[in-house]
Amino acid sequence: MSLMMLSAASVQAQQQRNATIPSNSQAKEDFQPNLTNQPGKQYPMVNSEGAVRVQLRAPGATSVQIDLGGRYEMTKDENGVWTGTTRPQDVGFHYYQIIVDGTAMPDPGTVSFFGAGRWGSGIEIPSADMDFWQIKDVPQGSIVEKYYWSKATESMRHCYVYLPNEYDKNPNKKYPVLYLQHGNAENEYGWAVQGHTGQIMDNLIAQKKAVPFIIVMDYGQGQNIHLKGQYAPAEGAATNDAFQVVLMNDIIPMVEKEFRVYTDAAHRAMAGLSMGGGQTSRIALANPTKFAYIGMFSGGSMTPEAVQGAKGLKETAKLVFMSQGSKENRGVVEGAEALNKIGVKAVSYISEGTAHEWHTWRRSLYEFAQLIFK
Amino acid sequence: MSLMMLSAASVQAQQQRNATIPSNSQAKEDFQPNLTNQPGKQYPMVNSEGAVRVQLRAPGATSVQIDLGGRYEMTKDENGVWTGTTRPQDVGFHYYQIIVDGTAMPDPGTVSFFGAGRWGSGIEIPSADMDFWQIKDVPQGSIVEKYYWSKATESMRHCYVYLPNEYDKNPNKKYPVLYLQHGNAENEYGWAVQGHTGQIMDNLIAQKKAVPFIIVMDYGQGQNIHLKGQYAPAEGAATNDAFQVVLMNDIIPMVEKEFRVYTDAAHRAMAGLSMGGGQTSRIALANPTKFAYIGMFSGGSMTPEAVQGAKGLKETAKLVFMSQGSKENRGVVEGAEALNKIGVKAVSYISEGTAHEWHTWRRSLYEFAQLIFK
Repeated sequence: MSLMMLSAASVQAQQQRNATIPSNSQAKEDFQPNLTNQPGKQYPMVNSEGAVRVQLRAPGATSVQIDLGGRYEMTKDENGVWTGTTRPQDVGFHYYQIIVDGTAMPDPGTVSFFGAGRWGSGIEIPSADMDFWQIKDVPQGSIVEKYYWSKATESMRHCYVYLPNEYDKNPNKKYPVLYLQHGNAENEYGWAVQGHTGQIMDNLIAQKKAVPFIIVMDYGQGQNIHLKGQYAPAEGAATNDAFQVVLMNDIIPMVEKEFRVYTDAAHRAMAGLSMGGGQTSRIALANPTKFAYIGMFSGGSMTPEAVQGAKGLKETAKLVFMSQGSKENRGVVEGAEALNKIGVKAVSYISEGTAHEWHTWRRSLYEFAQLIFK
Repeated sequence: MSLMMLSAASVQAQQQRNATIPSNSQAKEDFQPNLTNQPGKQYPMVNSEGAVRVQLRAPGATSVQIDLGGRYEMTKDENGVWTGTTRPQDVGFHYYQIIVDGTAMPDPGTVSFFGAGRWGSGIEIPSADMDFWQIKDVPQGSIVEKYYWSKATESMRHCYVYLPNEYDKNPNKKYPVLYLQHGNAENEYGWAVQGHTGQIMDNLIAQKKAVPFIIVMDYGQGQNIHLKGQYAPAEGAATNDAFQVVLMNDIIPMVEKEFRVYTDAAHRAMAGLSMGGGQTSRIALANPTKFAYIGMFSGGSMTPEAVQGAKGLKETAKLVFMSQGSKENRGVVEGAEALNKIGVKAVSYISEGTAHEWHTWRRSLYEFAQLIFK
């Protein structure tokens, strides 16, 4: 295929993405307020088929669309209120926005989430298995915001830390730690907010399906992490290792000082979604004796060759976990089998009916958490 | 004044608020990226006079304005990028938004804050005294998200809890508690995020200007708190006491169970800003033997008559604190003097150069925190 053909195909794809889809007029009329709405807000709504209905008051606008896996037409009533309905969506959480006269804006009806490089709206399509991340009246852990000084960036940074409920009740007990990273154009809030890390862990621990451990969630977007002084990259060097520098030099030492954690590889895990899965594989391969549990959710890869080239990794790694949504094509089953063949314990997981989105990653955490530190 | 005159005045005021102010063409050209911008974003910017410059790419829009204490005109360049500049603003934090063809939206350049009933943009105008809320390399406390079961709403609720740095290091020490509430159309994030509660406290404690104590920040918007069962209000009853019901029956018992705190009135404080100040005065008067320290920041009032009518309050209250911005007219000096005359220790504080906004409240917390639990 010539470059010109590729370019034409790419223009066509862009046009298709921007083409307006008619509002879904066949939707079942059993809409309920979306679960991530702000208190007191009725819209957006979701029906039992997973279709989303959005309303926005914008009397002065000439064109308003829902941008949720395509641009859906909205129509204006006599009061200047625009309404539109999407086709049924996959179960789970989706970022979306509203396009007003060509300008993207969040739907003011929902709580604000950071994804796709912006603070914007999020919709939750209930799934049959959603119980596992619901807030339940079980012993509640906590999500702690922790600021710390970073030598590598010469600035204060912050992270979120999940502490299991029992942490404060056992002042002499030490805990294992999972370092858990977000995806591209997301941030350190993602896992705790749309990921529901706290609820997933509280529920697993209450059911004794997971051992209590600590989870550290930090900001890993390499191009926004500016290394300074002795940590600054050489002129022209790639910056996608900036998070690795901060993790190894600042975050892990801070966590091991500020929290009651074990400091050996057997009690240390790293996982991430999408870009965070790529970081996990790169960091684990570059630090082969540091992480016993390695989780790559819809991102990253670890070939037998890479493992064999990373001295000590095979002996250190107790589990390599690879997952994807069933609507993704990442070959995690074959990837895990290839590692098993060289004697590395590897497990794959496929999230049924989901794509490169948060429900895949919530389920991945739910599965991964049951397998580690045991 | 007749009702009709009032209505005409109100229409005129609304028209003035909606009238477009020309972009500030006299602004000093020393603009720097705003402190609350998302990583990597240059705009919005603030200059040394406190003027704000906003940019938005919106090629399809026919009118774009900055809504920041008035609606400022923005103009479009040949690339469809709109730019506008406001007059100098008061120091401190302001909520604002962009109006695109009449529809309000957040500025995608800033981090997202909840205020004015929406997740939206916030701008920080540096102040000469801003050091007190800056993140510094001092021992860091933490902000903990805590979920709990509420009997009163028959649902899981959550709050944010500030724990001083030393909390985890003193497993046998108990701490006093301040219950600290947000204003109308804000939420439980406000004090920790735009209020910088954690930084204010960490800095005060590091300088030994405040004793270490715990701060609990919950969601108090009465009309969105739905009481159930035995706690449900009688048909037609006002709901502005819903937060009081939750605080006294759920939040305080949860905090006293889950955290290492003293449980007597001498070690319990309540404060709030604006609506939260009103809640503080009502709750303290209705529970006169429960709070030794009472802080009303730009809201609420406590007259000598009210104190004398609340049996036990005079004996319990060690300090009543009333504050306002110098651009507000609340009579806090006279209010405190009136209480002093009946033998209640009361202190007033006026934040110079600020109005009914967050910098007033950050400074109020900074002052109040130095006076309590001593």
